[in-house]
Amino acid sequence: MSNFTYLNIEKAYQAIHQKLIKTPLVSNDYINKLLGAKIYFKLENLQKTGSFKLRGATYKVSKLSKEQKLKGIVAYSSGNHAQAVAYACLEEGISAKIIMPKDAPKIKIENTQKLKAQIIFYDRENESREKIGEEIASHENRTIIKPYDDYDVIAGQGTAAFEISQELNNISVIPDIYLCCCGGGGLIAGTSTYLKHKYPNILSYAAEPFGFDDTKKSLDSKRIIANESGFTSICDAIVTPQPGKMTFPINLRNLSGGVVVDDEEVKQSIKILAEHLKIVAEPGGAVAATAALTKKIDIKNKTVVVMISGGNIDLDVFCSL
Amino acid sequence: MSNFTYLNIEKAYQAIHQKLIKTPLVSNDYINKLLGAKIYFKLENLQKTGSFKLRGATYKVSKLSKEQKLKGIVAYSSGNHAQAVAYACLEEGISAKIIMPKDAPKIKIENTQKLKAQIIFYDRENESREKIGEEIASHENRTIIKPYDDYDVIAGQGTAAFEISQELNNISVIPDIYLCCCGGGGLIAGTSTYLKHKYPNILSYAAEPFGFDDTKKSLDSKRIIANESGFTSICDAIVTPQPGKMTFPINLRNLSGGVVVDDEEVKQSIKILAEHLKIVAEPGGAVAATAALTKKIDIKNKTVVVMISGGNIDLDVFCSL
Repeated sequence: MSNFTYLNIEKAYQAIHQKLIKTPLVSNDYINKLLGAKIYFKLENLQKTGSFKLRGATYKVSKLSKEQKLKGIVAYSSGNHAQAVAYACLEEGISAKIIMPKDAPKIKIENTQKLKAQIIFYDRENESREKIGEEIASHENRTIIKPYDDYDVIAGQGTAAFEISQELNNISVIPDIYLCCCGGGGLIAGTSTYLKHKYPNILSYAAEPFGFDDTKKSLDSKRIIANESGFTSICDAIVTPQPGKMTFPINLRNLSGGVVVDDEEVKQSIKILAEHLKIVAEPGGAVAATAALTKKIDIKNKTVVVMISGGNIDLDVFCSL
Repeated sequence: MSNFTYLNIEKAYQAIHQKLIKTPLVSNDYINKLLGAKIYFKLENLQKTGSFKLRGATYKVSKLSKEQKLKGIVAYSSGNHAQAVAYACLEEGISAKIIMPKDAPKIKIENTQKLKAQIIFYDRENESREKIGEEIASHENRTIIKPYDDYDVIAGQGTAAFEISQELNNISVIPDIYLCCCGGGGLIAGTSTYLKHKYPNILSYAAEPFGFDDTKKSLDSKRIIANESGFTSICDAIVTPQPGKMTFPINLRNLSGGVVVDDEEVKQSIKILAEHLKIVAEPGGAVAATAALTKKIDIKNKTVVVMISGGNIDLDVFCSL
């Protein structure tokens, strides 16, 4: 970890920026007035494949050797990393096998299939995706592309913050607070590293769903703590069991704490984001916005960057909210 | 008209840019591949008040005299101009009376009310909003802010194209085609003027709903032709009876023709825009995208700018699509 700095992220940005959509950073008058704050939403739901995950996957794939590319990759993912890896591999003509939970949202499964990846379904309750991934990797000589515990993946995700700081620089704004969703912690580890470099006084917080606040608990006790079992959440993208071995030390260094939001609050936020910001956010992608909209962090009169990390939600589910 | 040029738009932009959201211009990989073209969507649904109308209203209000500001304004609108005028007046402490159809979308009525404007409802079938507006203006010495037939309003709407050309310039892109919705024609008159100045070879087309293709018909016969009565459309924002007296001569000079889309096609587009672009567009705001998505204009291998003009749709209506 000691070697992971903002320089990793700048290097990643140089390598992949032409393959990314430079997603917009937008402000909304209604929401600003509602909260008495100046909020800038980073719209990674508008990224290719509908989430930030394309950044890390693209960077990781760009660093594979010729031989690794020939032998193909294997990845496991709740769905957004799946689409991103499938996309990055399709662009390079690399064979991709991806392990996804049987109960992943339809849109994520269908889009991954459209991107020509071979999907292996597993049972979230009774099987280990890591174990299946390792078996395939070893039998078929495939390279594993992990969803977050990989410095290249973390650096790739961090490029979202490179763009954020460019945009803020253009309008001469210095942010006080950064709110970002947190599953395994790759996105927040990368982005908070870059934002802390640019804005040493920024306070960054991880937003997590109720029952899956492993990063908050781990930050509070300064060691990795897993979630207790038995919880469910609509935030399918970020219901990881515990902080990553690589992401957590970075987050422990960068973050000021965690915020927990529940499913009902997330549903309300998705509705506000649709009605006022005119965007479609998925539940996991809306938890940071939820932390702001529920005022669980004191943001009064502050300038706040809020990550909207993805928009891959089945429209029938969206409408049922 | 002969005096209306891109300079009016640059002047408007200088006057109002700090009051606007510089809305993003975004591209979507899925849609580009689907159409075999490079599409840039200008997201005016992310503008304050949820549509481009804020631009013209803000510029017009900025040009009122002190006395006019004291006496207040009156406007008529299907709903987006209403919110925009109400917003611009509230910012300046100006009294606003706004004439809206009884059957305007709830979201448009509620938002206009929240912005402290006094609403006068009228019956679209049996009353003339222009006549009601003129009566109020003359009785109360209020200034009328027309929705499109006003060079300041047209110049204000045109500022969206100033931003489009800035963004395209940043990425060294020259567009071949511009698709924009058209009701009274203010947005397309302003934006096509600026785009034609910047890109003399651009082909600009007006997109209109079936039964409300007055601009297409008028362009075809080079004179103002009104819509026949008896049609309805879900595209509430752009069901104006005929081209404007000021907007049409500009559009006749700038446009290469019109494209007609029907309600079913618009519904499908709204769904594609939600599923893939992750945005909420209202029916009237999605007609230009519909013209592209239905391939009614030959855009194969072209670089196309598509205006998404607004996002003010009741979420229950959105979900019923």
